[in-house]
Amino acid sequence: MRPLAIGVDLGGTNMRVAAIEDDGTQLQIIRSATNLARGYELVMGELVSMIRDLVRTFAANRRLLGIGVGIPGIIDLESGTLKTASNIPGWNDCPLRDTLESALQAPVILDNDANCAALGEKWIGAGRNLNDLCMLTLGTGVGGGFILNGKPWHGAIGMAGELGHMSVVPEGRGCACGNRGCLEQYASATAIRRMALEAVAAGLSPQLAGVADLNPHFDARAVFDCAVAGDSRARAIFESVGTALGVALANLINALNLPVYVVGGGVSNAWEAFSPSMFRQLSKRSIVFRAGELQQSQKKTTIVTRTFLQENAGLLGAARLPMLAEQSTRRSPLAV
Amino acid sequence: MRPLAIGVDLGGTNMRVAAIEDDGTQLQIIRSATNLARGYELVMGELVSMIRDLVRTFAANRRLLGIGVGIPGIIDLESGTLKTASNIPGWNDCPLRDTLESALQAPVILDNDANCAALGEKWIGAGRNLNDLCMLTLGTGVGGGFILNGKPWHGAIGMAGELGHMSVVPEGRGCACGNRGCLEQYASATAIRRMALEAVAAGLSPQLAGVADLNPHFDARAVFDCAVAGDSRARAIFESVGTALGVALANLINALNLPVYVVGGGVSNAWEAFSPSMFRQLSKRSIVFRAGELQQSQKKTTIVTRTFLQENAGLLGAARLPMLAEQSTRRSPLAV
Repeated sequence: MRPLAIGVDLGGTNMRVAAIEDDGTQLQIIRSATNLARGYELVMGELVSMIRDLVRTFAANRRLLGIGVGIPGIIDLESGTLKTASNIPGWNDCPLRDTLESALQAPVILDNDANCAALGEKWIGAGRNLNDLCMLTLGTGVGGGFILNGKPWHGAIGMAGELGHMSVVPEGRGCACGNRGCLEQYASATAIRRMALEAVAAGLSPQLAGVADLNPHFDARAVFDCAVAGDSRARAIFESVGTALGVALANLINALNLPVYVVGGGVSNAWEAFSPSMFRQLSKRSIVFRAGELQQSQKKTTIVTRTFLQENAGLLGAARLPMLAEQSTRRSPLAV
Repeated sequence: MRPLAIGVDLGGTNMRVAAIEDDGTQLQIIRSATNLARGYELVMGELVSMIRDLVRTFAANRRLLGIGVGIPGIIDLESGTLKTASNIPGWNDCPLRDTLESALQAPVILDNDANCAALGEKWIGAGRNLNDLCMLTLGTGVGGGFILNGKPWHGAIGMAGELGHMSVVPEGRGCACGNRGCLEQYASATAIRRMALEAVAAGLSPQLAGVADLNPHFDARAVFDCAVAGDSRARAIFESVGTALGVALANLINALNLPVYVVGGGVSNAWEAFSPSMFRQLSKRSIVFRAGELQQSQKKTTIVTRTFLQENAGLLGAARLPMLAEQSTRRSPLAV
């Protein structure tokens, strides 16, 4: 029987569950509002029933490998608990893995959502055929994940990939983490909205002001639309996003010289608006990136690209987790 | 017969050759001036005869595994050539490995000197018993190296570890690499001397001025002596070194969350002068470092420490290269 895995993208606002085959085929995706106000047990109950529905639909002729769950927070991999997740308040130390495993009677693996996105891109996205990859996810916050030697890199205490808190402007804007000048303060959707509202308040852009007045959901997407329509202030905001990303990526490229760095998350839809200034910074700041550019004909280089899998990167990577776990179990008796 | 490896530290000014056993015992070290003005062939000729002397001394009851060579430059690992080394001008594209192998009839492995230092620390230094480590070497320039999963990490085009060119002050001092605000411009021995001479020129430190006047070799060590003697300007210079290091290390810790980051090279002798401000930056800028501090009782944490092996880190790591190569050859028939 063909193997099947379930991928879960569990966010503070929405949750998505997908049935995915071992070649990346998405059989079905179902969605629901997380609606945290219901409390942990009711949310988990709905998630369990969404997963059960999908498993039942496809169980007749497929073998369930397990369930992978991506969460925008810090996870204790050993205990399978959520340590903290800023968009899922009140769930600190909740035993997510045990809750799901005992309800579903199947193996459950948790990981950070950006690690899942990185794994998805490595599997069937921008890093296909490569062993090493760095992923930046630009959403409400900025997340990051590394795949090294084909596997998610968790670090000594499971906190690798906190790329949103790299200092890109050492004495810059304050961040809730206690630092100043974090990448997240310059390249997240939240930062883009904030910069646009600051421009409006300072009377710098009548166009942005008009859109903000009319649009109760004024957000990074609306700022992007203004940039596309030619508003110079909106364009300058995305240029600053690219500059901040360029500083962070130049440092990461100089450090690890990975073959590919992938920019994903909702903000990556504005690639045309921020990538030119990002690439200018990379060319200026990274001797390793420049050396790679000279070698492109030799196939060995460092590439910075937008996500191939877009909003499905994390969901696909989550489903990949139980597939990798099964592979490593199968291989271990032979490994030296 | 007990295995033996030769480690070589080949710098622009001096070269050192050591005979080292597989438990790290240094049997003998010999030194010579590189004296580049003689030209590639004469320098290589002397290096070959130094290595031969050591091998002959110990060959009777030991089996030579090979020769590892650490060089402060960018190496093409496949061809065994030196691509560039700023302190070894004129040797670009020289076939170092072939030259040594054909003269010595033994396997030769080249690597960057900071990668060698990282490997030495992983083997019998600050990263003993750990699989992953990051090393910063603060000398004339600033170098870097990573050990990941027990092995030197070279990156897509062999340029990983260019940590001296991480941007720590985005619009800061110009660097020969084309960037502004590189770590090397704030934390190398060259930068310390430059900052001290600037302070003298600006009339900010009579004590530094007096030492600079008397001392034809006025260098980072002399600035450190002034700091130890209480000169406030010299102390401020080392504080700024620590601040720059702290920004770079905070970013590296947030990114990879390795268990240990090692600061080596000659400037690390001034640890007492720069490390307090470095640790202040780490606590302020790295949520991952702070989380690790809270977990120290659990053994899992991220530590920043000075080198354990000091000036021998690179030499020991160079000797380790042929030992690792032999291990992987022995293992490969069994590997899956």
